[in-house]
Amino acid sequence: MAEALVLHPDRLLPPDPGVRAVTRRLYDAVRALPVLSPHGHVDPRVLLDDAPFPDPTALLITPDHYLTRLLHASGVPLADLGVGRAGLTEAESRAAWRLLCEHWPAFRGTASRSWLEAELSEVFDVRLRPSARTADAVYDTIAARLAEDAYRPRALFERFGIEVLATTDDPCDDLAPHAALAADPTFPGRVLPTFRPDRYLEAGSPDWPALVARLGEVSGCDTGSYRGWVAAMEQRRAHFRAHGATSADHSHADVGTEPLEPGVVERSYARALAGTASAAECTALRRHMLLEMARMSVEDGLVMTLHPGVRRNHHRPTLHASGPDTGHDIPLRGDFTDPLRPLLERYGTHPGLHLVLFTLDESVFSREIAPLAGFYPSVFVGAPWWFLDAPAAVRRFRGAVTETAGFRRTSGFVDDTRAFCSIPARHDMSRRLDAGYLAGLVAEHVLDEDEAVETLVDLVAVRPREVFRL
Amino acid sequence: MAEALVLHPDRLLPPDPGVRAVTRRLYDAVRALPVLSPHGHVDPRVLLDDAPFPDPTALLITPDHYLTRLLHASGVPLADLGVGRAGLTEAESRAAWRLLCEHWPAFRGTASRSWLEAELSEVFDVRLRPSARTADAVYDTIAARLAEDAYRPRALFERFGIEVLATTDDPCDDLAPHAALAADPTFPGRVLPTFRPDRYLEAGSPDWPALVARLGEVSGCDTGSYRGWVAAMEQRRAHFRAHGATSADHSHADVGTEPLEPGVVERSYARALAGTASAAECTALRRHMLLEMARMSVEDGLVMTLHPGVRRNHHRPTLHASGPDTGHDIPLRGDFTDPLRPLLERYGTHPGLHLVLFTLDESVFSREIAPLAGFYPSVFVGAPWWFLDAPAAVRRFRGAVTETAGFRRTSGFVDDTRAFCSIPARHDMSRRLDAGYLAGLVAEHVLDEDEAVETLVDLVAVRPREVFRL
Amino acid sequence: MAEALVLHPDRLLPPDPGVRAVTRRLYDAVRALPVLSPHGHVDPRVLLDDAPFPDPTALLITPDHYLTRLLHASGVPLADLGVGRAGLTEAESRAAWRLLCEHWPAFRGTASRSWLEAELSEVFDVRLRPSARTADAVYDTIAARLAEDAYRPRALFERFGIEVLATTDDPCDDLAPHAALAADPTFPGRVLPTFRPDRYLEAGSPDWPALVARLGEVSGCDTGSYRGWVAAMEQRRAHFRAHGATSADHSHADVGTEPLEPGVVERSYARALAGTASAAECTALRRHMLLEMARMSVEDGLVMTLHPGVRRNHHRPTLHASGPDTGHDIPLRGDFTDPLRPLLERYGTHPGLHLVLFTLDESVFSREIAPLAGFYPSVFVGAPWWFLDAPAAVRRFRGAVTETAGFRRTSGFVDDTRAFCSIPARHDMSRRLDAGYLAGLVAEHVLDEDEAVETLVDLVAVRPREVFRL
Repeated sequence: MAEALVLHPDRLLPPDPGVRAVTRRLYDAVRALPVLSPHGHVDPRVLLDDAPFPDPTALLITPDHYLTRLLHASGVPLADLGVGRAGLTEAESRAAWRLLCEHWPAFRGTASRSWLEAELSEVFDVRLRPSARTADAVYDTIAARLAEDAYRPRALFERFGIEVLATTDDPCDDLAPHAALAADPTFPGRVLPTFRPDRYLEAGSPDWPALVARLGEVSGCDTGSYRGWVAAMEQRRAHFRAHGATSADHSHADVGTEPLEPGVVERSYARALAGTASAAECTALRRHMLLEMARMSVEDGLVMTLHPGVRRNHHRPTLHASGPDTGHDIPLRGDFTDPLRPLLERYGTHPGLHLVLFTLDESVFSREIAPLAGFYPSVFVGAPWWFLDAPAAVRRFRGAVTETAGFRRTSGFVDDTRAFCSIPARHDMSRRLDAGYLAGLVAEHVLDEDEAVETLVDLVAVRPREVFRL
Repeated sequence: MAEALVLHPDRLLPPDPGVRAVTRRLYDAVRALPVLSPHGHVDPRVLLDDAPFPDPTALLITPDHYLTRLLHASGVPLADLGVGRAGLTEAESRAAWRLLCEHWPAFRGTASRSWLEAELSEVFDVRLRPSARTADAVYDTIAARLAEDAYRPRALFERFGIEVLATTDDPCDDLAPHAALAADPTFPGRVLPTFRPDRYLEAGSPDWPALVARLGEVSGCDTGSYRGWVAAMEQRRAHFRAHGATSADHSHADVGTEPLEPGVVERSYARALAGTASAAECTALRRHMLLEMARMSVEDGLVMTLHPGVRRNHHRPTLHASGPDTGHDIPLRGDFTDPLRPLLERYGTHPGLHLVLFTLDESVFSREIAPLAGFYPSVFVGAPWWFLDAPAAVRRFRGAVTETAGFRRTSGFVDDTRAFCSIPARHDMSRRLDAGYLAGLVAEHVLDEDEAVETLVDLVAVRPREVFRL
Repeated sequence: MAEALVLHPDRLLPPDPGVRAVTRRLYDAVRALPVLSPHGHVDPRVLLDDAPFPDPTALLITPDHYLTRLLHASGVPLADLGVGRAGLTEAESRAAWRLLCEHWPAFRGTASRSWLEAELSEVFDVRLRPSARTADAVYDTIAARLAEDAYRPRALFERFGIEVLATTDDPCDDLAPHAALAADPTFPGRVLPTFRPDRYLEAGSPDWPALVARLGEVSGCDTGSYRGWVAAMEQRRAHFRAHGATSADHSHADVGTEPLEPGVVERSYARALAGTASAAECTALRRHMLLEMARMSVEDGLVMTLHPGVRRNHHRPTLHASGPDTGHDIPLRGDFTDPLRPLLERYGTHPGLHLVLFTLDESVFSREIAPLAGFYPSVFVGAPWWFLDAPAAVRRFRGAVTETAGFRRTSGFVDDTRAFCSIPARHDMSRRLDAGYLAGLVAEHVLDEDEAVETLVDLVAVRPREVFRL
């Protein structure tokens, strides 16, 4: 018994029998709707090549920093999980998989556990709860599935019911995989690039001069001046739009947007290129550049999404040993009201702008983001980034923003994942949780049930489309 | 069916059947108690003149920035709702009403929706859910009611069971309407002014010199010096107290209170009058002045209420087009512990002081406000401003403060509204929510039911009276 | 009826009947397990002397600043409760007890009320609800019990099932009571000291030079230099470890850890000794010293616990009249991500370090502490300090950290109390609350019940042992 992995059909639904009954009806209305994924990190070449996925560890553990970080906290070296290494042997993969299974209790109550369990069960038909004893059997089950044609990326894409999938891409990317996918008559799905220019705005970073030099080459604009940088960015955005991009994503330590005088910008830009700009000057330049990106969004219609407030690579020894995105990006306190004011005073009521605000600092949901989205037609409350699949956090999110901003000012679900096979589990969790939240409102007679159904369908099938201009 | 507007008798009560049964009993003990409204923004001339209310839009939409802001976020121009305009024609009012009804789904789950629905149903007998199709019929129903004598302000005041209603008034106000109401033997209600001197403390504002000049005229004190400003303030407070005021309300960006040396104050004051004071100097002056206001409260007994932490008029283009209070005051992060220390070290244990702390930053409830109110006899935890009528926020508020400060250190409900007709709905919501919170404690055997009843009656009928010295 | 004090067997369990049934089963698995108390403030001489406890007021009211502060907020002078006084006469003790009972309604819904009620009922067999009418009878009941041998400290220690009790001690303490207890064959319990060096790191405090002078005498190291201070600290830590200490506790206004150059440290140290160091210099010195303490923890294995973010003695007039720890330590906003980075980059992945992070700022649980504990093997999420026994706060704590960090990265319960007789009630509350939280996960099919039982046993019986190296 204790070794069986059985998904309960009512998982994540509120326990009160009356509320649960309403939730089930709401959930049934959306459970089978297509998946819209307007922001994520799947590599488009996976779908272009349609090669079989590698072994279970390389597919499910090594690239998933939510799993590797908690294993690391539990004493497992990252290298043993394949992180920062070229590849694991079959024996090493099996050993890494065993480490996950042995540490399965460490994941109790975590968001990762919920969707991984759903993924194992629903995608790979695993029927055993992971443990030291079952590790090899589970590994073998998944490995066997991965060898089947039905488990190749395009087959899963269809089985998952994905209608739109956005990737995240460097401005210098040629987007050839996207073009090839779009041109392939045998692949009906939409795979869209997303413009992600962070690195080109961080003039204080040591690799920035090389990056803008390369930006100049790719765009054909002389990025030796700020004016040229602007032209290059506009050129790359046009390239992205031509390949179907609908949004531009920005992630910096803060959301400051403060205009500089043209002369000041050029001088700071020059000093930054020469490596003589101060840290404060580089921050000011970045805030000016972010405002410039908003101006471009107003003009070209790319939805602007902000993912601020993380100290990236908190533990530099791990960064140097294993690379970035290895589980130690740690959130920071955030502010939105004053830092975004220059941007919103300029563009906040402009119909060209869609601005989706994400945060890892829950205290700003009710305090700043919901009030902003409750006034500015351009502003939308982003789904609770990093807590997207965390039931308690999702409930707190809805509880914090709905009473001020309602449902229509929210972005709809965003899976933000690089784990392709987790996409259906994540979207399913979101649907269950929103159904439960709405059922609670029905049970308290705040909404009628027909309104709740309509709202849930809107959240699943309409919000992402409208907010992200899909 | 979907077009009917039916209020459920158990609305906002917890869904668990056992907890709900307790909640009903608790709620029944207070549902019919008189309304005490110690802080709000109703215009006293409404009651003095007792003229019929204007059309539905002018009564319910135009002045309510909670409604207009979310319509604005949904793409409706504020001017179409009558905001910042002299008045709407009958056709324009109808059109504005239709905009609200068409966008009714945008309000699902919001606090505004809950009390507006209750107001429509219980005050105006509307039986149709607002929608594009029902807009005219709903408009006509309300318009017809407004023409009846039973819907004139004084009749509603009596029907609503209002015992005390506090308004919010400028220090230079002569309070003639309050005097006239008090002298009118046909009007038995108590309508009290509240002293709200914010603008006279903001020396950095361009209109400040003119304001203090006028303060000088009205008070008969020479406000050319800080000493004169103090005398003028004391004179105006005495005037307010003579007209029944029991509290003074203060709303600044922060709650800093820091004494300055007398010479420094006078010099800063003089520079501010001359327009040569720096922003930092004006902030320091304001913090000193706020401390001075606390000193006056200790002496004259006016309850001091603080509503800090909002960036007023965030979108200046809207301020210029439509005026202030148009839905874009956006909260800021707040601190209370250190900024209030000078005030509390001086006056915090003085029996003359009642200090009610409000906040829009929920994170300070458990961290700072509840601990302060749990030690200082002068400090009370204010009801959750802006979230007063938001069920989830009210539950968070009680959950955040009760375990540290109990119920007796809280202010009781404050409706803070300028929407006169919403008063009963708002107070009813508060009673339902507090009943539900207390019932939860009974259900978990934390309180006996007799204690819960007594506590709820205390919150509704005693706290506001004692805390606000009504 | 209303005068009876009856503890319900299901108190603090979730009200939903289905969830409650699961909770009961989980709770039954841990209710009788021994108490592990790895951090608290009981005086070891109480157990060494084993003298009868004094009267009810001196035992339960005077030293408990959670009770005295709320009575103070309710208008009771601290001196009337014995705070800051040498001792109360019998008549005064009775009068103080009566004040508590008269103000019993002020404690409704507070954490203090819940455990005090449990303590009165379960430890002292009180059957009357405290009130003005029952005050004397309750006092007499407790006083009679205190005269019995069964209520002497060692008898209660055994009856409470305490396996380990940690005290909190000054680095200069000789720890003679701990040694005597350990050497006493008639006392089988483990009573361990905790190294608490705060005051020796606050070079800006007026008593600091005298403190480090005494540290020098006690340690036999010349603390005239920073180098000597380090040697002295190491000597005292060795002394503590020799007496069974397993942890070192640190409580400063922030958790900043920033290394200084050796020359800078020595110069600042010298200036601080001479009383000529600036406040900023003293803060920098403290942050360097805290990093040094982390280095020592890595080397000697003392678990490092951080309790930051309180403005101690907020109301200095009360400090001067009644002494410290009198109910007006008020929390401050906190940050962990950047301030702890230097410490964690150096030692965060070192197997020698256990770092337990406590906070009074709930907003950092999900934002900073859970992500840190979810990556660094050295970091553990501390139980919710000050809200340890507050049901709603404990639920928020679990809700905030579990989805990121799971259960295994948390510290287990810490009672942090100086109220010896409250220990069983507090641990019982924690077990009930964690059982309820886990039952909620079972009810939502996030965990199977066998996993929930195992997790709860781990939290109660294993986490404290492993995290605090008991």
